[in-house]
Amino acid sequence: MEKAIFECGKQSVKIPVPVYIAASASVVGTKESEGPLSSLFDVQGQDDLFGCNTWEEAESTLQKEAVTLALGKAKLNNEDIRYLFAGDLLGQAMATSFGLSSFKIPLFGLFGACSTCGESLSLGAMSVAGGYARHVVCVTSSHFASAEKEFRFPLEYGGQRPPYATWTVTGSGAFVLSGEKKRAVRAMITGITTGRIVDYGIKDNFNMGCTMAPAAAEVIHQHFEDFSRSPDDYDKIITGDLGSVGQIALLDILKEKGYDIAGKHMDCGIEIYDSQKQNTGAGGSGCGCSATVLSAYVLKKLEEGVWSRVLFVPTGALLSKTSFNEGMSVPGIAHAVVIEKAND
Amino acid sequence: MEKAIFECGKQSVKIPVPVYIAASASVVGTKESEGPLSSLFDVQGQDDLFGCNTWEEAESTLQKEAVTLALGKAKLNNEDIRYLFAGDLLGQAMATSFGLSSFKIPLFGLFGACSTCGESLSLGAMSVAGGYARHVVCVTSSHFASAEKEFRFPLEYGGQRPPYATWTVTGSGAFVLSGEKKRAVRAMITGITTGRIVDYGIKDNFNMGCTMAPAAAEVIHQHFEDFSRSPDDYDKIITGDLGSVGQIALLDILKEKGYDIAGKHMDCGIEIYDSQKQNTGAGGSGCGCSATVLSAYVLKKLEEGVWSRVLFVPTGALLSKTSFNEGMSVPGIAHAVVIEKAND
Repeated sequence: MEKAIFECGKQSVKIPVPVYIAASASVVGTKESEGPLSSLFDVQGQDDLFGCNTWEEAESTLQKEAVTLALGKAKLNNEDIRYLFAGDLLGQAMATSFGLSSFKIPLFGLFGACSTCGESLSLGAMSVAGGYARHVVCVTSSHFASAEKEFRFPLEYGGQRPPYATWTVTGSGAFVLSGEKKRAVRAMITGITTGRIVDYGIKDNFNMGCTMAPAAAEVIHQHFEDFSRSPDDYDKIITGDLGSVGQIALLDILKEKGYDIAGKHMDCGIEIYDSQKQNTGAGGSGCGCSATVLSAYVLKKLEEGVWSRVLFVPTGALLSKTSFNEGMSVPGIAHAVVIEKAND
Repeated sequence: MEKAIFECGKQSVKIPVPVYIAASASVVGTKESEGPLSSLFDVQGQDDLFGCNTWEEAESTLQKEAVTLALGKAKLNNEDIRYLFAGDLLGQAMATSFGLSSFKIPLFGLFGACSTCGESLSLGAMSVAGGYARHVVCVTSSHFASAEKEFRFPLEYGGQRPPYATWTVTGSGAFVLSGEKKRAVRAMITGITTGRIVDYGIKDNFNMGCTMAPAAAEVIHQHFEDFSRSPDDYDKIITGDLGSVGQIALLDILKEKGYDIAGKHMDCGIEIYDSQKQNTGAGGSGCGCSATVLSAYVLKKLEEGVWSRVLFVPTGALLSKTSFNEGMSVPGIAHAVVIEKAND
C-alpha cells in the first residue's frame, strides 16, 4: 500500500518543515530544587503546596506558571497560541483541567502517562508543520504528593517504598512550538516515532522503570529502523523516567535487538536527583520529570552546541489504581522525538 | 500576526484535502439495545459484563470489538493503520490501555471526557489531511457501571439519582479515517473547531448537561463565526450528551449569542434512550454516547442523503471524584467537527 507523504518507515514521521521550540519553561518543587539540576530550573518552589490548599491545585499551579513563563519568554500572548496539547497523570487530567482554563486557548487533552511530554511535542509538531497552527504550547506536569495519592497511598499513611521505586517529580515543563523563527529559538523538532502499548506482564506498581523499559526499547529500535539511523547519529538518547533499574532493562533489551546505546543513554529520572543523598530510590519519574529536564538541561546543551541532535523518549507506565487492584499488569508506552540544534 | 495556512478564524481549521470516514462500528450494552436506536448498532450486548470479570475489562472489550469490526468493514488490517486516537472516561484511560494493546498500533491517548470522540476525529482528520497517515482509527468508549464507580458510587451501593442526572452509555464507537476513497465511504470530515475549557462554576456531579452546555454553546458560536456560517448551513447540529436538561441551557445560551438552533438541534443523549420508559433521567452521556450514535445513526442519515452536512459536537464534563470531593467545580469542553455526505 502506498504511504502518506510524510510517513517514514513503520511508525515514524519526518517533520516536513522546520518546527522550532521557540521557548520553554520549567517549574519544580522543593526536592527537585535540592537536586543536581537545581539552578537550571526557572522556578524553584519553596513549598510543594505552591500556596494552594490541595496537592491537585498545587499541580495545576505548576502548569499555569510554566505556561505563563514560556509565553513570556516567547514574547507571545495566549491569543497567539492556537492549541494547547496538555496532560498529567491524575484521573481525568485534573491538573490540566484546572490549571489551563484561564488561558482560554483551545485544548487537546492528552493521556500517555509519563510519556505525555513526548506525545504533546509529537502532536504539536505535526500541527505546526501541517499548517494548522502558527504557534502551539505543549505542557505536562506531575506532583509527588498528588501522584502517590492517585496511584498508591496518601502521604499521611506513611507507606514504605522499596528501594527500586521511583520518585514522582513535582514539576511542570511548557514548550512553545512555532513554525517561524523571528528571534532566537531553543531547538527544532525534526522527526517523531510514535509508540505502541507494550505489556511484559509486570504487576508491581512500584517498579515503574521495568514496566516502561520494554516500550522504550521498542520505540527506540523502531526509530533506528524507520530512519535508517544508529546510536552514532545521536549525541544522546534520553529516556524520560526509567531510573537506574529501568535503565539496566532498557540497555539489555536493546542489546538483544542489536543496538548498544550504553555510551549514549541518559535518563531524565537519573539526572534530576542525587538518589543516594536524596533518598529517591531509582530516580525521578512522572510527566514533569522529562518535561522539566528537557526544558532546563537538554535544550540548554543543544543551544550551547554541546549536542547537536538528541533522541528524546519520554516513557509512560499505564498504571491505574483500579486496574492494579483488579490484578492487571502495568503496560508501558513511549514516544520518541528527534530534537536538533536550530540552524543559526 | 500572519496565520498558518489552514487556520480558519479564531479556533477552526478547514480540512484542506478530503478525509473520509471509510468505515465505522458501534458496540453497545443491554440498555442501549432496548432503546429506540437498538437495531442500528452493530453489536447489541446481551450482558453488560461482555464475558469479563470486571466492568473495566468489559469496557476494554467494547473498544476492542468496535475497532475489530470497523477494520473489517474498511477491509483493512491493523498493519494498515498508522495511528489510534483513543480515550475513555476512566482514570489513566484504563479501558483504552487494556482494550487496544493487542492491535499493536501506535497510540495517541486522549482525554477530553465525553468530548473525546470529537477530539479524536479532529486530530485524526488533521493527521490524515496533513499527510502523516493514510489511515487512522478513532475510538472512544464508556460503560455505565465503570463510570458510576469512577465518578460517584459503585452500583452495589444503591445510590439514588436525581431525575436530571444523565445515564452513562455502555458502548464504543470506532471510525476508520482515510485519505483515499477506494470503495464506498460513509462520509467526510471537512472542518473542525476546537473547544476551550469553559467553567460556569457548577458543582453538581449529577448535572452533566448544565456543566457542558456553556462549552457546547461557545464552540458552536465560534464555529459559526470562524466559518461565516449560520444554523441554516447545517441539516443538524448534534451535541454529544447534554440530555434534555442541558439542551435547554444550550438553546438559551446560544439565543443570547444571537443564534437560534432550536429547529436544527439534536442530542445523541436524548436519542439513544426512551428516557420516560427506560428511567434514564435526562438522557444518555459518556464517551460512548456520541460515538455510537454517530456511527449507527448520524452517518446512516448522511449516507442515505437525508442530511448533507451536520455539525457534530461531542461535549465533555471535566469531572473527577477527587476534584469534586475537594469542592471544585465541573468545567466543560466541547469539540465541533463538520461531517458531510461524501461526493459520489
